[in-house]
Amino acid sequence: MRDEWFIRGDVPMTKSEVRAVSVSKLELPCDGVLYDVGAGTGSVAIEASRLLTEGRVYAVERNPEALSLIAENRARFQADNITVVCGEAPKALEGLERPSHVFLGGSGGQMEEILKEILERNPAVRIVANVIALESLCEILNLAGRYGLETEVVSVQVARARKTGAYHLMQGQNPVYVIAMERGERKEGGEGH
Amino acid sequence: MRDEWFIRGDVPMTKSEVRAVSVSKLELPCDGVLYDVGAGTGSVAIEASRLLTEGRVYAVERNPEALSLIAENRARFQADNITVVCGEAPKALEGLERPSHVFLGGSGGQMEEILKEILERNPAVRIVANVIALESLCEILNLAGRYGLETEVVSVQVARARKTGAYHLMQGQNPVYVIAMERGERKEGGEGH
Amino acid sequence: MRDEWFIRGDVPMTKSEVRAVSVSKLELPCDGVLYDVGAGTGSVAIEASRLLTEGRVYAVERNPEALSLIAENRARFQADNITVVCGEAPKALEGLERPSHVFLGGSGGQMEEILKEILERNPAVRIVANVIALESLCEILNLAGRYGLETEVVSVQVARARKTGAYHLMQGQNPVYVIAMERGERKEGGEGH
Amino acid sequence: MRDEWFIRGDVPMTKSEVRAVSVSKLELPCDGVLYDVGAGTGSVAIEASRLLTEGRVYAVERNPEALSLIAENRARFQADNITVVCGEAPKALEGLERPSHVFLGGSGGQMEEILKEILERNPAVRIVANVIALESLCEILNLAGRYGLETEVVSVQVARARKTGAYHLMQGQNPVYVIAMERGERKEGGEGH
Repeated sequence: MRDEWFIRGDVPMTKSEVRAVSVSKLELPCDGVLYDVGAGTGSVAIEASRLLTEGRVYAVERNPEALSLIAENRARFQADNITVVCGEAPKALEGLERPSHVFLGGSGGQMEEILKEILERNPAVRIVANVIALESLCEILNLAGRYGLETEVVSVQVARARKTGAYHLMQGQNPVYVIAMERGERKEGGEGH
Repeated sequence: MRDEWFIRGDVPMTKSEVRAVSVSKLELPCDGVLYDVGAGTGSVAIEASRLLTEGRVYAVERNPEALSLIAENRARFQADNITVVCGEAPKALEGLERPSHVFLGGSGGQMEEILKEILERNPAVRIVANVIALESLCEILNLAGRYGLETEVVSVQVARARKTGAYHLMQGQNPVYVIAMERGERKEGGEGH
Repeated sequence: MRDEWFIRGDVPMTKSEVRAVSVSKLELPCDGVLYDVGAGTGSVAIEASRLLTEGRVYAVERNPEALSLIAENRARFQADNITVVCGEAPKALEGLERPSHVFLGGSGGQMEEILKEILERNPAVRIVANVIALESLCEILNLAGRYGLETEVVSVQVARARKTGAYHLMQGQNPVYVIAMERGERKEGGEGH
Repeated sequence: MRDEWFIRGDVPMTKSEVRAVSVSKLELPCDGVLYDVGAGTGSVAIEASRLLTEGRVYAVERNPEALSLIAENRARFQADNITVVCGEAPKALEGLERPSHVFLGGSGGQMEEILKEILERNPAVRIVANVIALESLCEILNLAGRYGLETEVVSVQVARARKTGAYHLMQGQNPVYVIAMERGERKEGGEGH
């Protein structure tokens, strides 16, 4: 989904290409339950909601400006299977339906508490995180080791052409680390199609 | 969708991350009609078919080994909305339903003929191509200019971590150019959700 | 050499990492004669001049602001083996000593004329070009084919960490194509050390 | 310097482009004293030795096969200002001349001990490390913090064209993190030219 389709304000948004890769790494079945933690504009929640034809997304966000953007985007895309949750994870996750999948776009410095809470709720949960800070990358790898999570790490570096007259000038985007985590051996199969 | 989920043989396959970006750039509505030209293992066709809940994919391929892989993958993923078409584009496209979208994974050197045929059938078609050869990139940019197509070009460079003991060693994948093309101004909107 | 070491003004400058790769691809012997065409701030000329202990750089530039920056940087680094040449290539190259190496940072749209002139002066010249526009890349590959030049093409994509508090945030630079060209077979050897 | 110029055997070698960036980040004055720790084939030592017209390189390596390659390459390039040191850092560094610069190509798991030893010998030393493992990147950032080193981190991702008939196919190299470290504020200037 194109970035310009979303109402954005000044809230940072995962770029189209990285969003596509991240949603793909979630490997959502159509009846999955996804937490989008630090949902920002809600772009990941909305792109994921399209695949969750029988499932649900909980978009958790503490920033009021972002919250209203999520609500607007939810309406714009008629993404009725998104529940917007106001508050800070992991506290805001209490009482929500058990997740099958979690996307971590921003952790607000509570990475370990969030991971712990999620894994307690569902030890078989699949988690995908986006990070751009090297220190966050290190922290996640550390936590994954401590909590016995198998990790798949990719870095995605995109360059987009900007047109200037007859020329396409390639412009580098920021590289993003996309980390998928899951306990034990990853299951083979194309389930959820 | 994970690369290992597909039956592959020796046929080259678009890698998971590039496939996700490419399918995303197609911007498929649920009732779209997609031609996957040079379908290879059928991985793009299958990933796209999931979004085309009321649409159809025509997976066109001339290589017999690839054709049987597509058929196997189609069965494995129960992707009943994929029609496997044996033959070489543009000739093999004759008689098929009018396309709303086209993915060009491989053109077999018939790029211009294919573009021409597709644009005649539907001047508003949206086309996404993957190229890794610089000469193919140049050819597409040339053709896009000649046929009045607006282009969006991104290069996607992915590195994947390989685990060796306690270490994640980043390994570079080949960069792929993903080129989206469409006539005239691109429409605003989140239709097809 | 660090970017901040150079006096820059508003003239675009090859970034440190790409400059290092480009100068390395020139494979300058200590007695080489280098033309730096479209010299900009002179940063490539100056980095190369350090290796040319018995050689010379001709820094060719038509933009008056850039010319004065080159002169300032030349003085700052005491790079006495740089001759600053005012004018537009290929015309400005007339009368200059025969080049053994050429760096093309900017061609001002005269790529073919420049290549022709250079190759006439020295058919064994080694040329390195930096391009960021896809169309310029295509043009160079075309010209290289037409003039019988062997090419080595690399794309260099650098991300630099920006520090924000305790975090290193990786930020993408624009990818640059570095193209080395030479007639016939490239010679083996470590000559010029 | 081209990779093929070096005698290599089976010892892993820093690739040409990353070597150029790494040597550039060292910012060697002509009278510098460089330790190349984990020198491998000696390619960094040799490329650096060319700039050290009045200085010296100590190439430290523990692997016997690599040691003989360094010696051969040293002879091939007549790099008389390289001293080959057999042994494991930091122990092997004892008794050597005080370093102004250090390149860490491989630490053999003794990163902290090496850093400590080097900084004791010269608190103003400039260190450049190459890492490909995320865990090593994390370790270096940690150590840099603990030892009060300012860091500059870049990741370099190179793709090289492979020619197949008339086509240039871009092939991804492994991304390498190049980390430059120095105590306190980095000095301005173009000294050492």
